Amino acid sequence: DMALRHYTLDFNLSTAVDSASTVPGLLSIFHEQEMTETVHDTNGHGYLATFVGKNGRLVVLRVHSHGLVTIDLQCYEEDNIAELDNIHCLYHHPPRLPALVRGAKVDRYWPTADGRLIEYDIDRVVYEEESAYQNIKILHSQQFGNILVLNGDINLAESDLAYTQAIMGSGKENYAGKEVLILGGGDGGILAEVVKQKPKMITMVEISFMDGCKMHMRKTCGNILDSLTGDHYQILVEDCVPVLKKYVQEGRLFDYVINDLTAVPISTEPEEDSTWEFLGLILDLSIKVLHPNGKYFTQGNSVNLTEALNLYEEQLGKLSCAVDFSKEVVCVPSYSELYPFLSSKVVDTIC
Amino acid sequence: DMALRHYTLDFNLSTAVDSASTVPGLLSIFHEQEMTETVHDTNGHGYLATFVGKNGRLVVLRVHSHGLVTIDLQCYEEDNIAELDNIHCLYHHPPRLPALVRGAKVDRYWPTADGRLIEYDIDRVVYEEESAYQNIKILHSQQFGNILVLNGDINLAESDLAYTQAIMGSGKENYAGKEVLILGGGDGGILAEVVKQKPKMITMVEISFMDGCKMHMRKTCGNILDSLTGDHYQILVEDCVPVLKKYVQEGRLFDYVINDLTAVPISTEPEEDSTWEFLGLILDLSIKVLHPNGKYFTQGNSVNLTEALNLYEEQLGKLSCAVDFSKEVVCVPSYSELYPFLSSKVVDTIC
Repeated sequence: DMALRHYTLDFNLSTAVDSASTVPGLLSIFHEQEMTETVHDTNGHGYLATFVGKNGRLVVLRVHSHGLVTIDLQCYEEDNIAELDNIHCLYHHPPRLPALVRGAKVDRYWPTADGRLIEYDIDRVVYEEESAYQNIKILHSQQFGNILVLNGDINLAESDLAYTQAIMGSGKENYAGKEVLILGGGDGGILAEVVKQKPKMITMVEISFMDGCKMHMRKTCGNILDSLTGDHYQILVEDCVPVLKKYVQEGRLFDYVINDLTAVPISTEPEEDSTWEFLGLILDLSIKVLHPNGKYFTQGNSVNLTEALNLYEEQLGKLSCAVDFSKEVVCVPSYSELYPFLSSKVVDTIC
Repeated sequence: DMALRHYTLDFNLSTAVDSASTVPGLLSIFHEQEMTETVHDTNGHGYLATFVGKNGRLVVLRVHSHGLVTIDLQCYEEDNIAELDNIHCLYHHPPRLPALVRGAKVDRYWPTADGRLIEYDIDRVVYEEESAYQNIKILHSQQFGNILVLNGDINLAESDLAYTQAIMGSGKENYAGKEVLILGGGDGGILAEVVKQKPKMITMVEISFMDGCKMHMRKTCGNILDSLTGDHYQILVEDCVPVLKKYVQEGRLFDYVINDLTAVPISTEPEEDSTWEFLGLILDLSIKVLHPNGKYFTQGNSVNLTEALNLYEEQLGKLSCAVDFSKEVVCVPSYSELYPFLSSKVVDTIC
């Protein structure tokens, strides 16, 4: 693996030991390494020098006009970076950031839904498939176990029973003897947990990514995905929209509908985003197949995406039935952000 | 805030649309911006060009000899970065990483105990103090509330009731009528929760950082730190070692000792690290002030630091009493890593 390690080290001249000697001091550190120096014209935007070493090492030293010093050091994995320690000692910088590892075979950086940079302890790719519906990856993390990543979004890790419990109503529901419809849920987690409660029947409608999960997310799904039918459950490998429409026509009703299909879209412009339309359609059809006392559960998105959550509530308001709405915020181990789960119940039975 | 945004964009030539046109294509994007180009001699380590723009913008374009292309674009906050979108579209790169924000007034990057880069949604510094014992910061996060940071380590956020519950034994203990000793715990979370259970007496021994928490961690401590004594509790603002030694001499015993002082040290060389000696000392004294049926609770560290946890177990083996040890792994919202909590009980009563 010829990955590039990219160290960054930043400090303000005001906090450096001796501002006057900072630049010469830093330069001498790099000169000692016999690197080729280029000083660039910055058009009045401070001092900028680049240093290129024989072993492919690159240093970018900038002293910005407002006193910020930024140092970048890029080197290949086998290289040693003693200079950074020297700089670190000289300028009493707070603990420096871990190096960015760039171009590695296994990507460790998976941003949160609200766009923050998170480095995971991912050490290998376990499974990868480009399906007709999405890019499917299963990655191994030392602490979270295998992680399902769909189109670049962390979806669920084997550590994330908290996700499954939350989308099932956080232990407050009794599924015994009930009719349950799961939309999506291809990792098998919800199915595996609900089936333990002896429901009358679970119907799960999922079109994608069960093959990978069946093999590599066993801590989540157990052996429940090994067969498409079993005691008190069936899995329909179909698009859920026609299935829901058929159920509406037939007047089929469920005690619980658990929508594990799509996160609340990140876009806050519903009219321009067909995901919002899709979400509204699923929501409307789901409410139509709910028993009068039935409940609809789904996931939200990062608690920080408050606008998206507000728009979701707006969608609920547009439904033909009056729907009661509640929210629970949960810590899902592999997410690095708090996540709301949504529960809805028809409150006006004449609809 | 004159922070620098640092975008990185990496891809492999083998996956680019047309390898032959990649470098000229990228160059033309930057030439259009009227940037000053410097091509560097890399001693056979691929292609390296730097581009400096009039507005302080810097681009580093590298084509490494093994086919990796790395692009760095640094610009000031007000700058616009349309080129990156162009590159992104041209080369079908997967979702790009969020920009590193460098030199900002409020630092958003706080690595995990196992050394991974984590960006927090921190928007302001609420409190800062350089005490005789440590650097104390309280930072505000949109989702986690205020976060206590000691010497650069995320310690506890207002969202982290899960931490407090875990170090109290995860709801399996009954503190009513019991004698409880808390070592550390200056955020007030443990004290505030245990006191609700009507113990006989809680003694908390903490020497630092209560002033900041009292003001800015109210969701954690409520009003419990407003007074050093109250119904069924007292706070001793002292070093806990002499207090423990005095209790041992007096033969004073507790039903519970909760050590919230120090994480299991990250160092795995106990003989060279006085933190391990300190840990051993605290552990030994704590076990000596425990009732025969008493329990000792403490936090571990990142589950990934397995060696440190093994050394902790070794410390337990060295104690004068035989001690039973159990571990529970918990998701603490603000930590971005799973965290073990340790529970110990004296099993050999003749010691």
